[in-house]
Amino acid sequence: MNKIITVGREFGSGGREFGCRLAETLGYAYCDQEIVSEIVDRTAFSERYIQQILERKPTISFPIHIGRTLHTVPSPMLEQSTLLYQKQCEVIREMAEKSNCVIVGRCADHILREQHPFRFFVYADIESRIKRCREKEPEHENLTDRELRKRILDVDRQRSRYYGFYTDHTWGDRINYDLCINTTNTSIREIVTALSMLFMSQMQE
Amino acid sequence: MNKIITVGREFGSGGREFGCRLAETLGYAYCDQEIVSEIVDRTAFSERYIQQILERKPTISFPIHIGRTLHTVPSPMLEQSTLLYQKQCEVIREMAEKSNCVIVGRCADHILREQHPFRFFVYADIESRIKRCREKEPEHENLTDRELRKRILDVDRQRSRYYGFYTDHTWGDRINYDLCINTTNTSIREIVTALSMLFMSQMQE
Repeated sequence: MNKIITVGREFGSGGREFGCRLAETLGYAYCDQEIVSEIVDRTAFSERYIQQILERKPTISFPIHIGRTLHTVPSPMLEQSTLLYQKQCEVIREMAEKSNCVIVGRCADHILREQHPFRFFVYADIESRIKRCREKEPEHENLTDRELRKRILDVDRQRSRYYGFYTDHTWGDRINYDLCINTTNTSIREIVTALSMLFMSQMQE
Repeated sequence: MNKIITVGREFGSGGREFGCRLAETLGYAYCDQEIVSEIVDRTAFSERYIQQILERKPTISFPIHIGRTLHTVPSPMLEQSTLLYQKQCEVIREMAEKSNCVIVGRCADHILREQHPFRFFVYADIESRIKRCREKEPEHENLTDRELRKRILDVDRQRSRYYGFYTDHTWGDRINYDLCINTTNTSIREIVTALSMLFMSQMQE
């Protein structure tokens, strides 16, 4: 069976860099944007639309009363969210079948739970996340610290709702992960070098 | 400055084994029971009594009304708790001054915060903690699974209150640690081997 590593992460904590470096060091496939591209090929939706839908918890339609009868209002948005999540599951499972891989976000820890992935969660304090986002900020964007902090916390809230909706677990709750890494004071490069040893030693057994 | 590693841990998760193996691998001093022995030498209290006091949050005495005046009732227990905590701080600081060391529990992450220790938190799911406790259970003890689970959760509750009282932080909250390790499916031996690389590489810089 292939070795699967999943990486959940707080926005701005360097989770993507961690996943990417780990994949590179171990010679595993790194799956992130590739998953969206694959869904684009299999559906009629644009990359941007898919990205948007796959980052938000779907809006549920509640039954309404018309006279004395309960009716469920069909919600095209909910249907599309469900369809895209299913496509994402399909693509992720195929990628995990193909080779050893590192998958960042996308509830991959839950989708691949039967393959027993090694599950990381990467986080950091808000100040260092603001600093990291600031370093990667496009030139035309001039957000204040307050606006940037709000954006970071908004993205986390979306991720938390999305993860909770599809997995029934709490996003970021340590019990759902094998190792939680605080990147506030720890160098991602160094932690990757050390942890890659863990997977190399496991591979030798 | 000496390298300091602190290890917070859920009861039965193998935190002590992790700390002990890490100290051994790195050639650091391992400080746990030695701290209590040192306090025994410096006070008039027995080892057992010190151990008991240092595992529980102190009972606070509240001011009471006598007539129209507020009086604080002197509480010998609170005074002893405070004294022993201060002695513990003193011993921990001295040990950290002396050599590189690994300190398990005892709010050491907070006491030594100015030395910037590397802070681990070790945890596991309740089933594997019951299993681990069962393996180390004295022969005469025949606790049911339910009793053992209750004891484990009681000890965690005590640790949480004790840590909260002295540090004003939440015990086990990932933001207070650099790395949180779930030992449910991960071999302590392997994770120690990998992580020791992290400290060796830091030492070379």
